[in-house]
Amino acid sequence: MEESEQMFKSIRIIGHGRAGSALSARLRERGLEWRDGDPDLVLLCVPDSAIREVAGTIEPGPWVAHISGATPLAVLAPHVLRFGLHPLQTFNRSGSGDQLDGAWAAVTADTAAGRARGFWLAERLGVQPFEIRDEARILYHAGAAIASNYLVTLYRSASRLLESAGAPPEALVPLMRRTIDNGFDLTGPIARGDWATIDAHVAAIHDTAPEFERMYRALAEVTAP
Amino acid sequence: MEESEQMFKSIRIIGHGRAGSALSARLRERGLEWRDGDPDLVLLCVPDSAIREVAGTIEPGPWVAHISGATPLAVLAPHVLRFGLHPLQTFNRSGSGDQLDGAWAAVTADTAAGRARGFWLAERLGVQPFEIRDEARILYHAGAAIASNYLVTLYRSASRLLESAGAPPEALVPLMRRTIDNGFDLTGPIARGDWATIDAHVAAIHDTAPEFERMYRALAEVTAP
Repeated sequence: MEESEQMFKSIRIIGHGRAGSALSARLRERGLEWRDGDPDLVLLCVPDSAIREVAGTIEPGPWVAHISGATPLAVLAPHVLRFGLHPLQTFNRSGSGDQLDGAWAAVTADTAAGRARGFWLAERLGVQPFEIRDEARILYHAGAAIASNYLVTLYRSASRLLESAGAPPEALVPLMRRTIDNGFDLTGPIARGDWATIDAHVAAIHDTAPEFERMYRALAEVTAP
Repeated sequence: MEESEQMFKSIRIIGHGRAGSALSARLRERGLEWRDGDPDLVLLCVPDSAIREVAGTIEPGPWVAHISGATPLAVLAPHVLRFGLHPLQTFNRSGSGDQLDGAWAAVTADTAAGRARGFWLAERLGVQPFEIRDEARILYHAGAAIASNYLVTLYRSASRLLESAGAPPEALVPLMRRTIDNGFDLTGPIARGDWATIDAHVAAIHDTAPEFERMYRALAEVTAP
């Protein structure tokens, strides 16, 4: 199949939550949205737990895909024209297609035709595709959750400590952005081998916010060279 | 004292590591760098463990300050004209003063005169000052370490999982930036109450990268509503 071939002309999205709304807006911008008649592709943007059931209600014929990071392709049965495309992004409720710009997406397929279509769709959506094996999705998704969801956890926990210390939590934001800008270069006490400061942190957390002690210790352990 | 008063005209920096070099460049830009004669302020940018010793070598007279986040003012003895100013930022090796732009700084002082000077210096450096009590510095610094150092840990751990899954780790960067841009709004499995996916993550980590299991579990525990 040629790269330039238009693999889908009409894509129907089912599910208009945060991700589904953003994808829907982007397909509209690209002239790929489904209007009436039979779509070439049904893209399921429903919760993971609903994919199997919703897929089962679709009459076989069109391609069927889901956007879940952790869900295997098998839940799309009985459809065999299928793939998965997981946008590696966190979405807000704005419904803006711009949220896809700059993001990557994990494509999973069990045929060359499915893979080509997943990559084609990713490019039309404005995301950078990479392939991931069906069996590796859970590990990949665990990494994504660590990077995004637990980043929220770090901010929330650190904010609590700053508030307890009488400091403004928003002061953490430029620090966190710069940590990313600096290519995740490790600075601070562990980088300096200053374990006395780490011990003092643990003691202060133990006294003031003991609910974070186990997390702090586990993170220190993984960070230590 | 008036806000507009020039509290220091000549500031000598001791220690030209990552932070010291950036501060030095910024003081140079502001015409506040020490050239010769007696400085009005000696700013210690040496490692935490060296502050006490270096402070002890300075002839009493000028103001003396340190830039450590975790270190109490008492280590500046015998100096009584003293304060602490901790730039809440991570520095690279560029030595560029621009690294201070947009950052905040924690000022600690045991006198009103010290506080006024710490705030004055922060503003000249281009950082947004806030005050922190000497006794609260460790807790504040623990929060800073969680936000910055453990953000590095999350990225490194998540990268390892993506690599094991055959996915490009750099795909995590736009996700992490957007997580900050979205105001640390929690999305993903825990936000959806999808504990089956969390259990599957733990199982995959257990099999492939068991060194991260304790950290993953501790983070999940803190994240759970």
